[in-house]
Amino acid sequence: MADSELRFTRIRLFVEDDLAVGGAIVLGRDQSHYLQNVMRRGVGDRVALFNGRDGEYWAELIEMRRAAARVSVSGQLRTQVSEPDVWLTFAPIKRAAVDFMTTKATELGVARLLPVLTARTNSERVNTRRLRANATEAAEQSERLSVPVVDEPVRLPALLAAWPAERCLLVGDETGAGRPIAQVAAELLSDARVVPPLAVMTGPEGGFVPEELDQLRDLPFVIPVGLGPRVLRADTAALAALAVVQAVAGDWRSGRMG
Amino acid sequence: MADSELRFTRIRLFVEDDLAVGGAIVLGRDQSHYLQNVMRRGVGDRVALFNGRDGEYWAELIEMRRAAARVSVSGQLRTQVSEPDVWLTFAPIKRAAVDFMTTKATELGVARLLPVLTARTNSERVNTRRLRANATEAAEQSERLSVPVVDEPVRLPALLAAWPAERCLLVGDETGAGRPIAQVAAELLSDARVVPPLAVMTGPEGGFVPEELDQLRDLPFVIPVGLGPRVLRADTAALAALAVVQAVAGDWRSGRMG
Repeated sequence: MADSELRFTRIRLFVEDDLAVGGAIVLGRDQSHYLQNVMRRGVGDRVALFNGRDGEYWAELIEMRRAAARVSVSGQLRTQVSEPDVWLTFAPIKRAAVDFMTTKATELGVARLLPVLTARTNSERVNTRRLRANATEAAEQSERLSVPVVDEPVRLPALLAAWPAERCLLVGDETGAGRPIAQVAAELLSDARVVPPLAVMTGPEGGFVPEELDQLRDLPFVIPVGLGPRVLRADTAALAALAVVQAVAGDWRSGRMG
Repeated sequence: MADSELRFTRIRLFVEDDLAVGGAIVLGRDQSHYLQNVMRRGVGDRVALFNGRDGEYWAELIEMRRAAARVSVSGQLRTQVSEPDVWLTFAPIKRAAVDFMTTKATELGVARLLPVLTARTNSERVNTRRLRANATEAAEQSERLSVPVVDEPVRLPALLAAWPAERCLLVGDETGAGRPIAQVAAELLSDARVVPPLAVMTGPEGGFVPEELDQLRDLPFVIPVGLGPRVLRADTAALAALAVVQAVAGDWRSGRMG
């Protein structure tokens, strides 16, 4: 982008601080660098801030230094709205695919990302710090009022042992035994009127091993779902499932937020 | 992957030739190289072939040379099935995003990819040859029986002037004026019993200009659709819309194909 365009791009930043009109907030080194050196902002310019709790506010830049910028919170843009309580639990795959999945899942409104280690998971390392940075950037750009929580990875048995019983877990079932996901999502909605707490789970490349699928199917909160006749990559499956859940039972049922 | 694993990975290749039991086919340099040097196959090994017309067949490698491999078609695995007639028309975006979108749209069963140049399209060059290669690879890996057609890019007015009147065009409407996409997809299905010919259209980063949106809304085959309250990137919007269309009105309504 040319400098002139950058100057007119609306900037949204996620902050941890409480937000209220009249408050002053100090932004750290990374955000200050981004404002000054990437987006060419200076004292007197405005940015939008959100923290996942207080809605969205305008703030004015009142002091810019190399390692910190001070802003004054000057007006509320939006009040906080409740968002669908949809989680995504996924087996870590290649770095590019995990980054991509984190960004897209955030745009699709996922509330929490839970990496899970399965029998066929190749990589046991998940850089959750990088995932949090990706999720934050995607939340800022997608006009979300919150940033999804990113958990540390756990093994599948531990995840399931601690699973909250009231949260349905939709598991992509590659054997063809699952019911079509749109049908399952519509039933969950009609039972509850509003979308109940739920989660989407996708396996690693190569899928779950049969013992894992058996274990999953035996759990009362698990609903095996079908994602169509083609073989989907793990990241495609995750995003497609989230889109269908949001469209059929989540917050895509009404229009754009205010 | 280790060599031992590669040896047991099922290989599927798209070919242009007619397929029938007893036929012999010569594979070109790229596919021969892939079989010998990447996947370590030799004479006597088997591969699956499909051509978008005749279903899927087993073939046995009967001769391997550097620039060509000969296979003998030995048995039919699947008959050709009809697939939902869903197109994706999209404004070219960054190379990585276009590659990604092509691959994912193929997995989601898109029949045709139509790049379209809009007022805010930054790049007018689209490497359709690369897109075809991506689509072919994704079709091979996703167990599809066809490869989507990839058109050369055209300007938006030309695309719309030549548009087939019976094909609904679902346009992601960022102004919030569109109806929720799951609702639109369900209505299209209930009107037609089977999913009618349709297409999903997404704009460039930055969206359509107001004149384009006005022009689109005035066309009888255009249905503006809403994709939820968050701002989606162009590639996210395309894939989410395709997933919802397939799940609600397309071939995700029944189980995995045979």
